[in-house]
Amino acid sequence: MPDSPPPGQGDTPPDDDLTDDGFLGGALQILQPRRGYRAATDPVMLAAAMPTREGEEVLELGCGAGVASLCLAHRTGARPTGVELQPAYAALARRNAARNGIAMEVLTADLARLPPEARRSFDHVMMNPPFFATGDGTPAADPGRETANREDLPLATWTDAATRRLRPGGWLGVVHLAERLPDLLRALDGRIGTVSVLPLAGRAGRPAGRILLLGRKGGRGAFRLLPPLVMHEGADHEDGGGAFSPETLRILRGGEPLTAFRSN
Amino acid sequence: MPDSPPPGQGDTPPDDDLTDDGFLGGALQILQPRRGYRAATDPVMLAAAMPTREGEEVLELGCGAGVASLCLAHRTGARPTGVELQPAYAALARRNAARNGIAMEVLTADLARLPPEARRSFDHVMMNPPFFATGDGTPAADPGRETANREDLPLATWTDAATRRLRPGGWLGVVHLAERLPDLLRALDGRIGTVSVLPLAGRAGRPAGRILLLGRKGGRGAFRLLPPLVMHEGADHEDGGGAFSPETLRILRGGEPLTAFRSN
Repeated sequence: MPDSPPPGQGDTPPDDDLTDDGFLGGALQILQPRRGYRAATDPVMLAAAMPTREGEEVLELGCGAGVASLCLAHRTGARPTGVELQPAYAALARRNAARNGIAMEVLTADLARLPPEARRSFDHVMMNPPFFATGDGTPAADPGRETANREDLPLATWTDAATRRLRPGGWLGVVHLAERLPDLLRALDGRIGTVSVLPLAGRAGRPAGRILLLGRKGGRGAFRLLPPLVMHEGADHEDGGGAFSPETLRILRGGEPLTAFRSN
Repeated sequence: MPDSPPPGQGDTPPDDDLTDDGFLGGALQILQPRRGYRAATDPVMLAAAMPTREGEEVLELGCGAGVASLCLAHRTGARPTGVELQPAYAALARRNAARNGIAMEVLTADLARLPPEARRSFDHVMMNPPFFATGDGTPAADPGRETANREDLPLATWTDAATRRLRPGGWLGVVHLAERLPDLLRALDGRIGTVSVLPLAGRAGRPAGRILLLGRKGGRGAFRLLPPLVMHEGADHEDGGGAFSPETLRILRGGEPLTAFRSN
């Protein structure tokens, strides 16, 4: 019977199954599984949206390899705590924090049963929950990716954990599929106020693919539906990825904050 | 004791308290109270959004002076039935239908207690519910306008009446304040599928002021958040009303349908 691997190490994929990717124009180097859940623009946009200041405490639910928390800490000097169910991703988040010189606490835990270290108040909570409700869509071939994509826990469990951990006046940030906006609003029902939704559209004139939602615990401001942020240049009918729009590049490569939520 | 006025007449304000306004570039002439709830762009946009064909039956809840139903009937040849709580507005809707040569049935009734004539299935239901929840905002000085603006009935009573009267596969159209979108989605919860939301923005780059929502009874399509329709030309920082955008003019003056919901 083989020895148990040391905690948080043996769960990590071998290094040749990892890629080392630059984020924020190379300011951060992030190890990610070659196959599985791979961060692209969503966690970077989420981190750019948070109205966080230096020294504030941020909880990220389902932090994966840590991209959103590390982007946010890099930009603002906030102190991130990540909760991640999958040990291999949690171990990667710890490695990514260490190699980027960021003090991030990563807890391998189920967000529905947070450990004592996370059962305190945070200034901000952010999350990028699994996109697909249980039973919808085609399962991912990779089990780690499947867990990251599939909503094993109802969205309400995520919003419940988030709002419980948020201090009064603290901000919740969520990035999700635009098609899940009704579910997300329902899950947040009455627990978060002053909600603003920023549609993220692949191209000008296209329906939103993602939404970024920002809301304040105890906030009493009206719901706002902001003008979309267009991610890519080029016309509606053009195919393929295409270049990022200047505003998106400022965030993804320049590491600048997303200012759309500040407008009125 | 004076004689009772003939039904649907004595409730109408004297004609010098009315204005006679052209809609759809003058194709329709609509009497409206000089003071009180006056239709502007909302009911015209709502009518333009409905995927209605000639001869189909349409129920409008809270029809006011009839603008949405008459615009829709004019464009499509649909057969409208309006329900209006306030007798003076119901009487105006009957007059407006007659003077525009449109066969519209107008029922003076509470939508929470529909009369037998309306307790049947319709191909489409549309509504422009009061904007403000009970207790919010400043009451309108005019009592008719106050009733039209103020949500005496919860939004769920409107959506309940609407979805009950809709045939399977029939379409519901709603125009509302953008800030009420979460309330509207909650009120529709699970009763309407294939929901699309079109934000109506006063100007490019501004948050949406209104939303148009279209959904299908029994629909199983994903929720869609469409790119905004910009109502006015001019930049974000410009003051005042300004000219309508070409797309808006095509609808408001040209009487053309709103095609945004057809895109993907």
